[in-house]
Amino acid sequence: MGELILLAHGSGGGQTHRLIEQVFRRRLDNQFLRQGDDAAVLPFPAKLEEGARLAFTTDSFVVTPLFFRGGNIGKLAVCGTVNDLAVQGAEPLYLSLGMIIEEGLPVADLERIVEAIAAAAAEAGVQVVTGDTKVVERGKADGVYINTSGVGIVPPGRRIGGAEARPGDTVLVSGGLGEHALAVLSERAGLSWETPLASDCAPLNGLVKQLLASAPGVRVLRDPTRGGLATTLNEIAAQSKVGIRLDEAAIPVSPAVRGACDMLGFDPLYAANEGKVVVVAPPEEAKAALAALRAHPYGREAAVIGEVTRGPEGLVTLVTRFGGERVLDLLEGEMLPRIC
Amino acid sequence: MGELILLAHGSGGGQTHRLIEQVFRRRLDNQFLRQGDDAAVLPFPAKLEEGARLAFTTDSFVVTPLFFRGGNIGKLAVCGTVNDLAVQGAEPLYLSLGMIIEEGLPVADLERIVEAIAAAAAEAGVQVVTGDTKVVERGKADGVYINTSGVGIVPPGRRIGGAEARPGDTVLVSGGLGEHALAVLSERAGLSWETPLASDCAPLNGLVKQLLASAPGVRVLRDPTRGGLATTLNEIAAQSKVGIRLDEAAIPVSPAVRGACDMLGFDPLYAANEGKVVVVAPPEEAKAALAALRAHPYGREAAVIGEVTRGPEGLVTLVTRFGGERVLDLLEGEMLPRIC
Repeated sequence: MGELILLAHGSGGGQTHRLIEQVFRRRLDNQFLRQGDDAAVLPFPAKLEEGARLAFTTDSFVVTPLFFRGGNIGKLAVCGTVNDLAVQGAEPLYLSLGMIIEEGLPVADLERIVEAIAAAAAEAGVQVVTGDTKVVERGKADGVYINTSGVGIVPPGRRIGGAEARPGDTVLVSGGLGEHALAVLSERAGLSWETPLASDCAPLNGLVKQLLASAPGVRVLRDPTRGGLATTLNEIAAQSKVGIRLDEAAIPVSPAVRGACDMLGFDPLYAANEGKVVVVAPPEEAKAALAALRAHPYGREAAVIGEVTRGPEGLVTLVTRFGGERVLDLLEGEMLPRIC
Repeated sequence: MGELILLAHGSGGGQTHRLIEQVFRRRLDNQFLRQGDDAAVLPFPAKLEEGARLAFTTDSFVVTPLFFRGGNIGKLAVCGTVNDLAVQGAEPLYLSLGMIIEEGLPVADLERIVEAIAAAAAEAGVQVVTGDTKVVERGKADGVYINTSGVGIVPPGRRIGGAEARPGDTVLVSGGLGEHALAVLSERAGLSWETPLASDCAPLNGLVKQLLASAPGVRVLRDPTRGGLATTLNEIAAQSKVGIRLDEAAIPVSPAVRGACDMLGFDPLYAANEGKVVVVAPPEEAKAALAALRAHPYGREAAVIGEVTRGPEGLVTLVTRFGGERVLDLLEGEMLPRIC
């Protein structure tokens, strides 16, 4: 049996220092983390233009199990925060990493998680520049909870946000829904499928950059995580005071996810995604947006799925395959706890 | 019995939205939090000068119990992160707030915690601009774990850090040691003392600003939290490749803390503080630094406690009241878990 995390690893003393050195700094090394001070002191990008703004976001991750097909809590923690920056039109720059570790976690598990953090950060082109490690007693966390916060720069004049959708705009999504939720659920329940379900967990800043280069007028970007597409669109409809009408037949859901959802009684429209983005684009840019999404490896299954309507304000409706129309509410209750 | 937190409050759907609205947004309201997007988009200070840098820090708080004399986990979470920015010489601007809440926590407790967050943020002059709320099952956290990350601006030319101490520098501390640790421990163990022990938890950016106005050459600032003064000075000695010699008789410890430490077998030099700062100043500014600290309500008991020596590199020594000299190591093992 390998080494286990002890309460003393969270003391702030010698054992904390050694853990940070051996597990974290070695894998995440950069000049800022090496400073070893209480806060990282960071340069702004060289070309910080007049009117540039700071994007700042935070997310805690409590997913269970820690490891699942397609990723683990570490990869998720980097992608989730990078994506929250990217969907505001920001260039992600720096991440913080706050670990709450359960006493008894194998150090080897922690190392795998930190390796996934390093790999995802490298792919996204961000650096982990500051961190914190706490240890809680056995039973007081499920292995590890991770918080990542992130900062990035929003270029001058860029105006992307949930309140920017306008009637007539086109709604797109970058790929099939529900893959993260169903992969985690399958792992948790020990279910195996003919076609294995893998989480879509991925950093989307590259995709978003490519999208905005082709469709600079994009009004809203959002990653449909907890609560899924339906909840995300409800938020946008409420913020923008518009209606949104979706075409059920156009919404991409892989046969594997659809089959698993049917069997388990889940609705893929409410299931969490960790590598997809919802796009609201002005109608004249819809075609360019779709092409840009499809040209990127993370957007190959992108589709136009609906449009923004004048009203009813705040309401999301779904035109079903059979031509009926029903209201898609916010998620109520808890469909699947601890999914991210 | 009042309302309790449910798993559904962490779903990302309707109940999450209502909790955020009713508990968080109402108390922490500002124009950025009101945007309601995945990341806050924030202006830089109007006078962002050439050469200014970004300070970025993170801290998770797992203190138990949640409420203690002198503060609670919410106040602690704001002060801890504000102080980590302040000790890099940064002007703290914006905080993020990541809550991991245990199912069953009374909403009234959460409200008290968020009120403390609001009050501490107001005192420090910072805004909570982005947040995240997760809920874990009963038994999987102790009421609530909080992560705060913070960003601030370091003015051009300011160079403060653990590696900046030089032989001949003067070491000061802003007040009596061990108050936070002993207050939390007393609360946890149900101990009551003749003179009640209260945590020193406080935002120190005002004190630091006043200090730097009088002593702009200050080389190192650090708040001696986990591991206490001894561990903090060991870090500085190692980073700066110098020795540090302390005068035991000069180190401020209140009679109440000293009495409690004697009775419980704790060493105040290793006990956590949440409202104190260690200052390393060039000798010619030591007097001004001391006066500036003492002129501030949080620094009235400030004292010169030692000096930086050429060597032995990385070693902190204590000249005892009896004229002996002993080495003060890094904290090893865990003296007092879950103190912050």
